[in-house]
Amino acid sequence: MNPSTPHPATRAHVASVGITVDASRMRLDEAFLARMTPAMAAAFAAMDELERGAVANPDEGRRVGHYWLRAPELSPTPELRRAIEESLAAVRAFAADVHAGRVAPQRGGRFEHLLVIGIGGSALGPQLLADALGDIGDPLVPHFFDNTDPDGMDRVLARLGGHLAGTLTLVVSKSGGTPETRNGMRVAQRAYAAAGLDFAAHAAAVTGEGSELDRVATEGGWLARFPMWDWVGGRTSLFSAVGLLPAALLGFDVDALLGGARDMDAATRVPDADANPAALLALAWHRAGEGHGRKDMVVLPYKDRLLLFSRYLQQLVMESLGKAHDLAGERVDQGIAVYGNKGSTDQHAYVQQLRDGVPNFFATFIQVLRDQDGPAFEIEPDVTAGDYLLGFLLGTRDALTENGRDSLTITLPDAGARSLGALIALYERAVGLYAQLIGVNAYHQPGVEAGKRAAAAVIDLQRALLAALRHAPTEPRTAAELAAAAGAPERAELAHHVLEHLAANGRLARQDGAAVRYHLKETR
Amino acid sequence: MNPSTPHPATRAHVASVGITVDASRMRLDEAFLARMTPAMAAAFAAMDELERGAVANPDEGRRVGHYWLRAPELSPTPELRRAIEESLAAVRAFAADVHAGRVAPQRGGRFEHLLVIGIGGSALGPQLLADALGDIGDPLVPHFFDNTDPDGMDRVLARLGGHLAGTLTLVVSKSGGTPETRNGMRVAQRAYAAAGLDFAAHAAAVTGEGSELDRVATEGGWLARFPMWDWVGGRTSLFSAVGLLPAALLGFDVDALLGGARDMDAATRVPDADANPAALLALAWHRAGEGHGRKDMVVLPYKDRLLLFSRYLQQLVMESLGKAHDLAGERVDQGIAVYGNKGSTDQHAYVQQLRDGVPNFFATFIQVLRDQDGPAFEIEPDVTAGDYLLGFLLGTRDALTENGRDSLTITLPDAGARSLGALIALYERAVGLYAQLIGVNAYHQPGVEAGKRAAAAVIDLQRALLAALRHAPTEPRTAAELAAAAGAPERAELAHHVLEHLAANGRLARQDGAAVRYHLKETR
Repeated sequence: MNPSTPHPATRAHVASVGITVDASRMRLDEAFLARMTPAMAAAFAAMDELERGAVANPDEGRRVGHYWLRAPELSPTPELRRAIEESLAAVRAFAADVHAGRVAPQRGGRFEHLLVIGIGGSALGPQLLADALGDIGDPLVPHFFDNTDPDGMDRVLARLGGHLAGTLTLVVSKSGGTPETRNGMRVAQRAYAAAGLDFAAHAAAVTGEGSELDRVATEGGWLARFPMWDWVGGRTSLFSAVGLLPAALLGFDVDALLGGARDMDAATRVPDADANPAALLALAWHRAGEGHGRKDMVVLPYKDRLLLFSRYLQQLVMESLGKAHDLAGERVDQGIAVYGNKGSTDQHAYVQQLRDGVPNFFATFIQVLRDQDGPAFEIEPDVTAGDYLLGFLLGTRDALTENGRDSLTITLPDAGARSLGALIALYERAVGLYAQLIGVNAYHQPGVEAGKRAAAAVIDLQRALLAALRHAPTEPRTAAELAAAAGAPERAELAHHVLEHLAANGRLARQDGAAVRYHLKETR
Repeated sequence: MNPSTPHPATRAHVASVGITVDASRMRLDEAFLARMTPAMAAAFAAMDELERGAVANPDEGRRVGHYWLRAPELSPTPELRRAIEESLAAVRAFAADVHAGRVAPQRGGRFEHLLVIGIGGSALGPQLLADALGDIGDPLVPHFFDNTDPDGMDRVLARLGGHLAGTLTLVVSKSGGTPETRNGMRVAQRAYAAAGLDFAAHAAAVTGEGSELDRVATEGGWLARFPMWDWVGGRTSLFSAVGLLPAALLGFDVDALLGGARDMDAATRVPDADANPAALLALAWHRAGEGHGRKDMVVLPYKDRLLLFSRYLQQLVMESLGKAHDLAGERVDQGIAVYGNKGSTDQHAYVQQLRDGVPNFFATFIQVLRDQDGPAFEIEPDVTAGDYLLGFLLGTRDALTENGRDSLTITLPDAGARSLGALIALYERAVGLYAQLIGVNAYHQPGVEAGKRAAAAVIDLQRALLAALRHAPTEPRTAAELAAAAGAPERAELAHHVLEHLAANGRLARQDGAAVRYHLKETR
């Protein structure tokens, strides 16, 4: 067989959602596809097991059930099915109550603003939905705390300004122990209190049953609680209450979102690489990066509303695939780096490098057929702004191809809820299949945990340094001396950073000189 | 000499702006630094020539003058100095007139909203400034058209809603011929007209003297025109009227912005790699990627206000360095891929891969010492939300180091205008020096031009297809048949995409079947 024979089936179309994946510019050939057939068959089988309820996240001993969220009847047990259906019903009912004013703010009227407090999957999914589907005139205006930056939170609160009395706050955290989210909740509680408002009367929680947050919300008498399950990971939680509750509150078409995902699942469940667009994506990624992530995935949606999709995919792909060890325990250092914003904007930025520079990537163009609601405005005879958008996509794609840069193209009928649901489901499945091809657990994130532990150690060091400073508050000491006094002489560099930060924020005094010294109180 | 000897000078501090660059985790060693000394000396010399007015962009025969923008007295000619000083004075005067209501909207009152229409450097610089320095209560509220997505523009106009009469529109385009910006201007003109408003009475232009846009603004009697010069590239135009006019209008401290950049320039002009933080960055990048961009640059500012800095840097670095040919004309395919959003948010996303996955990157942590204006709120005793932010930065950095992933750390005193100006100047210089080290022209973008030409060809094909359709409007034909009728039989794939797009937007009829056929009018 000639290895360069182009394979006929490098495009896959999903008629139910009108989405096409075109991999014809990814150098897939018969030899490669034949070589991958056994691995892909195994990946299909593993995905089937996963959907049937196998423990597909072995490190954490968990099932992986995000596909059930849009097809509860496929849940492996009646209890899971009921949990999903009840959660969805509760989401709908709560949103309807909020819209109708049956769930109303403490001081009356209706909720008009929504503050979502979360991080990672608990913020990025809702942010993507809000940006992709939101319009002026939606029933609530969305705001986010997605970090532990006090200035960032202050700025959101300033935007909320006098509207806090009409703001519904959702706190989203599976464990309830994520520090950024916990901090955001405290900042919000303080802001409500400062406005003379009862936080609990404006708050709902999305969290794991029995979590610390669940306890706080129950004991505090919050408006409502919605479940997060241990069989749904943060980065695939968009179709749980994490994404659906904000979506329903913002007035988006939750049925369309779920239906699009469900229909894409049906198309990507088919164990036939030639007809399965998710398998086609996974194979194209494998081909491009030789199964070792040797090419970055650059994501270029030509649509303003899909700007955050690139970042959403960055999380989904990199957190799922970026793993040190494979399922057999071998060190593999896997993953695929993902970046991108939107076209054609990015063409006036880094696309210069894509065409002419380091050939360390493949591009993914995302085209949206429908330009806008309402009639098009012709910028010049026969040509609209949307025609230019398409022209830039096709032109740039050809310019990349000419220079030997590979690209995928995904075509969506529009940027509505149904298409977005399907697009997310497509990538969830592609990531799952690719993870099987390279043999990694796509459903845990041990590196994130390591960073959290290291951060907690810094906070502990700060407490110890402050205790040491209080022990001799007027005595100027160096970072090394204070680290030693705090019982951590080997952590002088960390102590330096912590002390500089405290000094910059007026929380201790700093003496400049040959050696910088810190103390709590002036000596006289 | 032992090649692994750590070099003492891997940190550089710029006292005038309080910024530190720490490259101690980048494996710089004596042997590498000694090897790079001649190349770095040549880079310093070339940068000196550039600042003196040499034609540093040989392909376009242009000088490169962005450093003069913050130190006009260093301009190579009195004419250039005067042009810079006059432009700055005009920016200040216009902003003061707008704030005082001396430049007022057609229907009276004051301008309260600002719509900036631009793309690439003409949008990203102003967007960065607006996001980094903006607060509720600024004299104008900023909005952007930064693409040719009609739906995206409609959404911005919907947000402007009834405020169009109080909206000042800036059209920013050096040539005046950038299609996205031209399209945005037409959409804005139409919106003003639909509201019964005279566009010219609400518009100002930032453009090259004698450009098409300059002519339109002059003949139309727009409120004002500000210059863009051919010796300032889009990606380094932030300190020209492109960035300073929006900054001044939004009420930001333009002097601080310029002063920070000026002071950083003074520190990075020093031809001594041990004392020059920009040289330190350039050397660290070179070390990490072996001078061939073999490692991506992941940028993690731990500050919400600096979210767009990662994207700004993506443009600055990739558009400057991503070049097919070096200055000698050899094919080199150079560049450094850049991505990132903000910490600690990204730790809950792709940082999993950074720690555990493909080791194809180095990280750049950007730390901001000052957490916020006003007193800090203690989330728990002795610990603020900002302490957590620092804890996550330091913890993640250590977690990366433990796994052999290199990182740079840049520490800023705060996220104000002076620090931001200095940070941008630091990277402008680092990019300039690195370009010299690898021998590429950092100041042109031939690949962007290729994409533009290819897009124009798609628009031309659309026109030809529509003409062919009109020739036999009721006759259903395939994409291949229409491409042939349009005189471009080899462009059937492009024709297919163009026709599908027209059909999806109701601009022609489509018959599904074994072969899809298109026609303009129903046959009966």
